[in-house]
Amino acid sequence: MFGYWGKLLRVNLTNQTYKVEEIPEVTLKKFLGGAALGAKVLLEETAPNVEPLSPENKVIFAVGPLQAVSFPGNGKWSVITKGPLTGTYLDSAGTGHWAPYLKKAGYDLLVIEGKAEKPVYLYINDDVVEIKDATQLWGQDTVSTSQMIKEELGDRRINALNIGPAGENLSPVACITCDGHSFAGRGGAGAVMGSKNLKAVAVWGTKQVPVHDKEKASEISKKLFKSAYENGKYFREHGTACAIVPLNELGDVPVKYWRDDVWTEGSAKIGAPRYTEYLKAKPKPCINCPLGCHRHVHFEYDGEKKEANGPEYETLGMMGASLLVEDLDAICMANDLCNKNGVDTVSTGAFIGFLMECYELGWLTKEQIGDLELKWGDGDVLVELTRQIINMEGLGKLFKNGIRGAAAEIGHEAEKIIVEVKGLDYPAHDPRATFGVAVNYATSPRGACHERGNVHAGSLGLYYPELQDAPADRFSVDQAAQAAYLHQSISTFYNTLTFCKFMIGDGGITLSELCEGLEAITGWKLEAKDLFRVGEAAFTLQRLINVRDGLDRKDDSLPEKMKMAALVGPRAGEAPTPHEKILDDYYKLRGWNEKGVPTAEKLKELELEEYVSFIPAK
Amino acid sequence: MFGYWGKLLRVNLTNQTYKVEEIPEVTLKKFLGGAALGAKVLLEETAPNVEPLSPENKVIFAVGPLQAVSFPGNGKWSVITKGPLTGTYLDSAGTGHWAPYLKKAGYDLLVIEGKAEKPVYLYINDDVVEIKDATQLWGQDTVSTSQMIKEELGDRRINALNIGPAGENLSPVACITCDGHSFAGRGGAGAVMGSKNLKAVAVWGTKQVPVHDKEKASEISKKLFKSAYENGKYFREHGTACAIVPLNELGDVPVKYWRDDVWTEGSAKIGAPRYTEYLKAKPKPCINCPLGCHRHVHFEYDGEKKEANGPEYETLGMMGASLLVEDLDAICMANDLCNKNGVDTVSTGAFIGFLMECYELGWLTKEQIGDLELKWGDGDVLVELTRQIINMEGLGKLFKNGIRGAAAEIGHEAEKIIVEVKGLDYPAHDPRATFGVAVNYATSPRGACHERGNVHAGSLGLYYPELQDAPADRFSVDQAAQAAYLHQSISTFYNTLTFCKFMIGDGGITLSELCEGLEAITGWKLEAKDLFRVGEAAFTLQRLINVRDGLDRKDDSLPEKMKMAALVGPRAGEAPTPHEKILDDYYKLRGWNEKGVPTAEKLKELELEEYVSFIPAK
Repeated sequence: MFGYWGKLLRVNLTNQTYKVEEIPEVTLKKFLGGAALGAKVLLEETAPNVEPLSPENKVIFAVGPLQAVSFPGNGKWSVITKGPLTGTYLDSAGTGHWAPYLKKAGYDLLVIEGKAEKPVYLYINDDVVEIKDATQLWGQDTVSTSQMIKEELGDRRINALNIGPAGENLSPVACITCDGHSFAGRGGAGAVMGSKNLKAVAVWGTKQVPVHDKEKASEISKKLFKSAYENGKYFREHGTACAIVPLNELGDVPVKYWRDDVWTEGSAKIGAPRYTEYLKAKPKPCINCPLGCHRHVHFEYDGEKKEANGPEYETLGMMGASLLVEDLDAICMANDLCNKNGVDTVSTGAFIGFLMECYELGWLTKEQIGDLELKWGDGDVLVELTRQIINMEGLGKLFKNGIRGAAAEIGHEAEKIIVEVKGLDYPAHDPRATFGVAVNYATSPRGACHERGNVHAGSLGLYYPELQDAPADRFSVDQAAQAAYLHQSISTFYNTLTFCKFMIGDGGITLSELCEGLEAITGWKLEAKDLFRVGEAAFTLQRLINVRDGLDRKDDSLPEKMKMAALVGPRAGEAPTPHEKILDDYYKLRGWNEKGVPTAEKLKELELEEYVSFIPAK
Repeated sequence: MFGYWGKLLRVNLTNQTYKVEEIPEVTLKKFLGGAALGAKVLLEETAPNVEPLSPENKVIFAVGPLQAVSFPGNGKWSVITKGPLTGTYLDSAGTGHWAPYLKKAGYDLLVIEGKAEKPVYLYINDDVVEIKDATQLWGQDTVSTSQMIKEELGDRRINALNIGPAGENLSPVACITCDGHSFAGRGGAGAVMGSKNLKAVAVWGTKQVPVHDKEKASEISKKLFKSAYENGKYFREHGTACAIVPLNELGDVPVKYWRDDVWTEGSAKIGAPRYTEYLKAKPKPCINCPLGCHRHVHFEYDGEKKEANGPEYETLGMMGASLLVEDLDAICMANDLCNKNGVDTVSTGAFIGFLMECYELGWLTKEQIGDLELKWGDGDVLVELTRQIINMEGLGKLFKNGIRGAAAEIGHEAEKIIVEVKGLDYPAHDPRATFGVAVNYATSPRGACHERGNVHAGSLGLYYPELQDAPADRFSVDQAAQAAYLHQSISTFYNTLTFCKFMIGDGGITLSELCEGLEAITGWKLEAKDLFRVGEAAFTLQRLINVRDGLDRKDDSLPEKMKMAALVGPRAGEAPTPHEKILDDYYKLRGWNEKGVPTAEKLKELELEEYVSFIPAK
């Protein structure tokens, strides 16, 4: 028996120094880890409105208690920073193999400050921390970078988060990759690494991390591995591509950059089972994963046979359905280009949809498009525009400040057709199919985010029997705020624990079972409602960073297209309006005032009284 | 000086008899001719709910006073009957050379009754009327039929209205053609001729028809020929294709079967001036026409060079823009197939748009579509589907009862996406671009009709300085009913006079000048407001036929798509709603009750008191 504890590794790239700090148990118990601990550090340690790509911004990597042991779904890590795409608080989660290594090296948090003079990478091997030259790595793609580091360090077990050329070039949609098949994709964290001249973070950890009851933890873990494996058979067979057809049937999948409503034949062509058969797709699991949703696929493009990491549901949605592209080979090619260059496939797909719509509306100049015909459904155009966006050349230049910048530059009525919140493009779930999604996207601290509330059509009303009744009517304006409040808080808890949400939904693990696991590891007695409270507190803390920087209700917006109900299809006649009414309901549930600012009372209730001073005066 | 008079030629095909009846001046002065006189006969002589394709239905051809002399725009004739597509009152107007010949043979009206035992055609040569065998003509296309009749009768000047194979096969969208370039296109009058085994009506007339002041008439006519010729230069150069680009800029042209809003690049490809250049288009004028909007074009399809009558604005709208087809050769081919087979291009284009939308929505079965991919923009699919619709085979079989029948057979939510009123497909003017169009289409007696009110975006607020101020705000809900009331009444007056509306708009002739011409011919002193009253009375009489048969407010509908405002483009945010409010306003202006039934008071005001007994009891 011992008190649970954690450590923070702080690296300053400007000074080339590092130090280790203790994290007291009381802090860990309140925040767990991940996106809560990271938000706490970001709030406390960065100035208001810090410029995302300046040395003053920090990039924080975080794990949580589950990474101490072998536990299903603990391959997840979070990166927390001010994001360059939105200028807001940003956290983004990746998986792969890296997360447990950081914990086993002894760290819950890795805080990176400053900026290196020239390209470097960080190498953490238990207590040894080195800032190493990355001149040779600069310009390498994400897969090569990983391999070259393993070779240089002489240990294939070493795992290195890294950025591709897009991050080096400060693309606002650059992501951070792990193992070539996992990505902290959204919001441009890769560019923050790039702005610090930080190419990679290699980690190897071998320590015995303190665990409250090792035997019990092992027993629970084994039980959950087994049950998740059994529950997840279909998911393992087809990966997230299994969701395309059923979610299209619910009207959840974006069609034609959110302008159309149904894509039945197309969805059958890109979704499972065809995806699995045509691409000879096989699972490519993250560490400690009984589900293995990531895919290894075979495809052919431009006469060349290829193997690579396969597109996920969100990528199929944004590069397939949203563009009417049925050509799986082209989608795989565009996906692979994004992955290797380290670019978010969701925003890239959204950008291309936006360009295709602008083209159709005659808003692009001959000078901008050259000879390219930006026709919906053309897989080659998808690949070519992906290249242009990655290389920030041609039409890609328009996106140097994201979709909002592109809309402003294109002019006409382009600002009316973009589908984003706070500058982050909608991912592939339509709020007209589930009203809670609208307020979820509107209020998510990093902008429109599906990782902040598994509230979309397929999940509503499921999973949390231990908590309050989950609202189950997807077309209820009255239930929308409650659905978002519940699912956001729980999802934020996952990101705080850095735990894979699929273990719950597809693996069938319950919150109570998670509590058992957590107790075995930490010794803390927790119930499902405590997990909810941790998520709620973390979410509020993240909100506080944004309101400190001047964001409020006006930034919690609903795109114009989402106010337009479909004529036919599974969500005919439905729209999540009036948005302002739903927002009012939501703010009440969250204990925020009518401007969307957390109240001092609410902070106290969530044991966040030390942050009351961060509430803006007016 | 003499009293103006007219004659009715009544032919009974069952009995193979005919007789000539006098039409008293008082009747002519009240109704003028055309669609007013025809409606009067149809109302008085047919039973309620007469089956359109039964021998009990009558098909009535009518001209008016202007056909007595050489007068600009008098190449027009009307056909009046109960229509097979809608089951309602139907009148449809054609041009060409036939109209003045009928008048010069001595007749204002030709009423055809009964049904011939075998295929026949009618030959009217002044006082000689013959019912002739048409066995050899049956199955011939519209152009061959015309030529064969000229040859058989040994006089190339003889002109024969006729039907193609579609009319013989009772297609509900079969039209009646004249000279191979003019069509009474909408509503299926060709099938009514077909149901009577009547292939053609050949006419040659040489009589001196009584004219009040021949010299004056000739002088006015010359003056108007000259001014219309001068005003109509651009129109003569490009025909109705000149309207595509400017009307697209107003948001008036249907895009993607009324689902999209702008088609800028495409409209430039199919509209003038490209239409004129690419197709080497030349005018092909009707008789007495200083404008010559009809086109003779050169195109190539399937490797074969062709010359034919070219597509009009409405055809370009429904077979081009509405299908996203930019391929002028394919549009010309589909148009020529329709013309030769005697089929309405507007409904055919609408059907194809509907099929493409159903296909995209996954509502067509493999059995229905075979190997055809019904992709938007595919010109070959346009041609193939045109063939199927003409031959009522394959997908064309769905339309044996028009678009409503097809929607019912296809099921799903197909009834929500069709764009029609009373079963007649919308022509190519979008009411969201001009709200008056919505109520105009809703209340037109034959269903959605652009010939019943030149109220669309390009014409609003123009042309009638002698009448009340024409409402000019195209997006005004408050002005919509007034705009429709004004333009409908005037357009109905044109169809009553059988006079080409383009003489007013594009030729610049005024209503006052028309009054001068009419006075010289008939001796009647008329003012612009009298013309309006004639139109209003005729329109009311036509309404009475429909309400007698059970139609009322519920049939004056607005398609669902028209309630959906565009997000962007020239009519962003605009929709002609609430429809019921506009309808209330409109009924008040018309003097109809809240069910849309003309009141006895209104009939009396319009000197239609003898028809009060036709008002339904409840």
